Amino acid sequence: MTIEAIAQRARKAAWELAALDTETKNRALRAVRAALERSRVEISRANAADKRDAEILVDSGQLSKALAKRLDIEGGKFDGILSGVDDVIRLADPVGQVGYAMRLDHGLDLYRVSCPIGVLGVIFEARPDAAVQISTLALKSANAVILKGGREAERSNRALVEAIQRGIAEVPGVPPGAVQLISTREEVREMLALDEWIDLIIPRGSNELVRSIKDSTRIPVLGHADGICAVYIDRAADAERAAAVVVDSKAQYPAVCNATETLLVHREALSRVLPELGRRLREAGVELRADADSLPHLPGAIPSTEEDYGTEFLDLILAVKTVGSVEEAIDHINRHGSHHTDAIVTEDAKVAELFLSRVDSASVFHNASTRFADGFRYGLGAEVGVSTNKTHARGPVGLDGLVIYKYRLYGHGQCVAQYAPGKRKFLHERIEAATPPSPQAPNEISPSRP
Amino acid sequence: MTIEAIAQRARKAAWELAALDTETKNRALRAVRAALERSRVEISRANAADKRDAEILVDSGQLSKALAKRLDIEGGKFDGILSGVDDVIRLADPVGQVGYAMRLDHGLDLYRVSCPIGVLGVIFEARPDAAVQISTLALKSANAVILKGGREAERSNRALVEAIQRGIAEVPGVPPGAVQLISTREEVREMLALDEWIDLIIPRGSNELVRSIKDSTRIPVLGHADGICAVYIDRAADAERAAAVVVDSKAQYPAVCNATETLLVHREALSRVLPELGRRLREAGVELRADADSLPHLPGAIPSTEEDYGTEFLDLILAVKTVGSVEEAIDHINRHGSHHTDAIVTEDAKVAELFLSRVDSASVFHNASTRFADGFRYGLGAEVGVSTNKTHARGPVGLDGLVIYKYRLYGHGQCVAQYAPGKRKFLHERIEAATPPSPQAPNEISPSRP
Repeated sequence: MTIEAIAQRARKAAWELAALDTETKNRALRAVRAALERSRVEISRANAADKRDAEILVDSGQLSKALAKRLDIEGGKFDGILSGVDDVIRLADPVGQVGYAMRLDHGLDLYRVSCPIGVLGVIFEARPDAAVQISTLALKSANAVILKGGREAERSNRALVEAIQRGIAEVPGVPPGAVQLISTREEVREMLALDEWIDLIIPRGSNELVRSIKDSTRIPVLGHADGICAVYIDRAADAERAAAVVVDSKAQYPAVCNATETLLVHREALSRVLPELGRRLREAGVELRADADSLPHLPGAIPSTEEDYGTEFLDLILAVKTVGSVEEAIDHINRHGSHHTDAIVTEDAKVAELFLSRVDSASVFHNASTRFADGFRYGLGAEVGVSTNKTHARGPVGLDGLVIYKYRLYGHGQCVAQYAPGKRKFLHERIEAATPPSPQAPNEISPSRP
Repeated sequence: MTIEAIAQRARKAAWELAALDTETKNRALRAVRAALERSRVEISRANAADKRDAEILVDSGQLSKALAKRLDIEGGKFDGILSGVDDVIRLADPVGQVGYAMRLDHGLDLYRVSCPIGVLGVIFEARPDAAVQISTLALKSANAVILKGGREAERSNRALVEAIQRGIAEVPGVPPGAVQLISTREEVREMLALDEWIDLIIPRGSNELVRSIKDSTRIPVLGHADGICAVYIDRAADAERAAAVVVDSKAQYPAVCNATETLLVHREALSRVLPELGRRLREAGVELRADADSLPHLPGAIPSTEEDYGTEFLDLILAVKTVGSVEEAIDHINRHGSHHTDAIVTEDAKVAELFLSRVDSASVFHNASTRFADGFRYGLGAEVGVSTNKTHARGPVGLDGLVIYKYRLYGHGQCVAQYAPGKRKFLHERIEAATPPSPQAPNEISPSRP
């Protein structure tokens, strides 16, 4: 099948998915889970083959050990995949939620109801379990999805998606084009050009992947390229809290996007906060790169360069900079950060509010580690990705990020001409009941209808 | 100033606007209104000069009479502009609304709070009153805006924007870069390339304008190019309702995007519904282009071509097509429509629900004219534009479409390491109170702070 045919098949599937009720979608998810369980041996065999080839690449230095390790989906990992499907079944249906309901006039009711976006193109690296997570989240939100996994996991991905497709095929009404897999970079390139058929691209992987995708498509992209997060220690910071928050933000798991890369310190807090904080960071193995004013307070630190303040280290390295005011800290973050997650440590609630209002980032924290920026920790149930976009969805994105809405108007033959100046007036009265007459369509029309 | 300097000035203004409270924004809006009122003579003089030049263009056939007429902002039109500012002052503040609030743990509260998008680039044609409407909506939603108006209204736009800027300058804390005007196509071209500084482009004008902008920028565009709306008359349609809805949808105001261009009729309704409907449409001056099956039921109609079903006539022309089922109607609309607004006329609620669920359009109506798709009629208070996008905002877009959200987390020094497996568990308890500790920041920090 050509990519265009795949995309059109997805589009057709999306139109059918949009009319499914919650129970049918959950039945499909249970069938997917059962099919994965039944295909365990086959999936394991495919995964073993991928891992064998990856080991050869590791030995020859063409693949990192860390990436090769992430290929594994056998044993406990496989049980985790199955229980992940259970989690998605338990999530509330994001479709059919009424966000706005207005009686325009007697017998003329308007409902803004959440509905799927349509067709998602999801490009992910290494981890084959992402194929299951994404497919099940798409199914729950009634979106069709075209998946492209990492080359190293090609056989695992194929085995997983074939099992998913067998599960879907068992449930009447769920279209077979709901989940499809493509496999080459050339196919991805073609997919990114199909803005007529595909509504949203979600890249999950390295900064390079995200950036290259953002640069080569007109389809909206949900994601983030960089994660240059900062912690600002205010002059009214509690020294113990500052140390705890900074060490966790930097060192608890430095390889991820919500780890902190820049530490800003108010000049008046340097001597009070930095010596103990510096000691604990050194203990955690963090290399400190400090500006001229903070350097004397950080034994063992090396001088920073301007470039350090715009670098996502993803490693145990922290750039330290002195600022004269909270305004200077805000300005630094807005100009040099990546609008992902930034925190202030202060006991002054007014300063905190200024920081939280003016820092233009998806997540802004008062006295908490930047590492909390995460869909699970936020209680969203599942994370589709983290977005630094300024429209649609921002920050950790849950299932809500995979829906949009449509306006449904229920009338009795009304015409706009009836409401011309001097004639009828609109009522515009909020409707309290949260559901339209029938929020979800029947899956089929009864043949006995006259 | 270069366009890049203008955009950077807007960005800086946006960061300051984001921290303003409702009262300050309304004070600025009142000052803008007063400044406009004070500048009435000066604006009128600029408008008269624009109109004089436009008349010359009309006489030489270079400008349509309709466009020239839309330039006028004197007399009653000017009063309308002033009362439009009053309307925006009365609108609820879209910023600071809590959409999600979760207690992650005791003393660790998360709020998802609406906030401005940032910098808007708005390109509009002819009507200079749009400059005021857009500037005031932007101010109310705390977005900075860069305006580009039509060339014919250049002096009027400049006079209006200068008055607006004088009003803004009177209110401490409101940055002067909040509203800026650019004037040449070359400047627009440059602006569309500044995706680093500008967050959203809103084109208001002809399809050609919207399409050419969508084709030449990577910045998200809020708008719609086409409005190919359809009405489907089901076999269970009431004939009188069908006639009323179709005549209003087509003929009440044919030059706008929510006017209907395509009529789909169930085969079994042809003989019952079309003769009377056709008579009324002819009476309203509508030219009918019908397929072979519907043609015999429509005296005076001419045969349609395939092209007619993909054309936005914006005129008293209607393409009529016969379908064998609601599914065929849905499929036709999804493939040939523009996902703007589509209606079904039927007395069968189940068929209506299928149509409303499966038609992939921003607005889907049961027994109502497509002409109702409009921000004012929807009760949104003000219309920023109509969007056929699948992300962020869809359909008539109110002030809500100019905001996004950020996550604010209020802690007491918590670290992610405390929540490692086997340690503390997240509470994840919904917070009922709808406001974070202090949803809006003070405009300045008290100098008496220790």
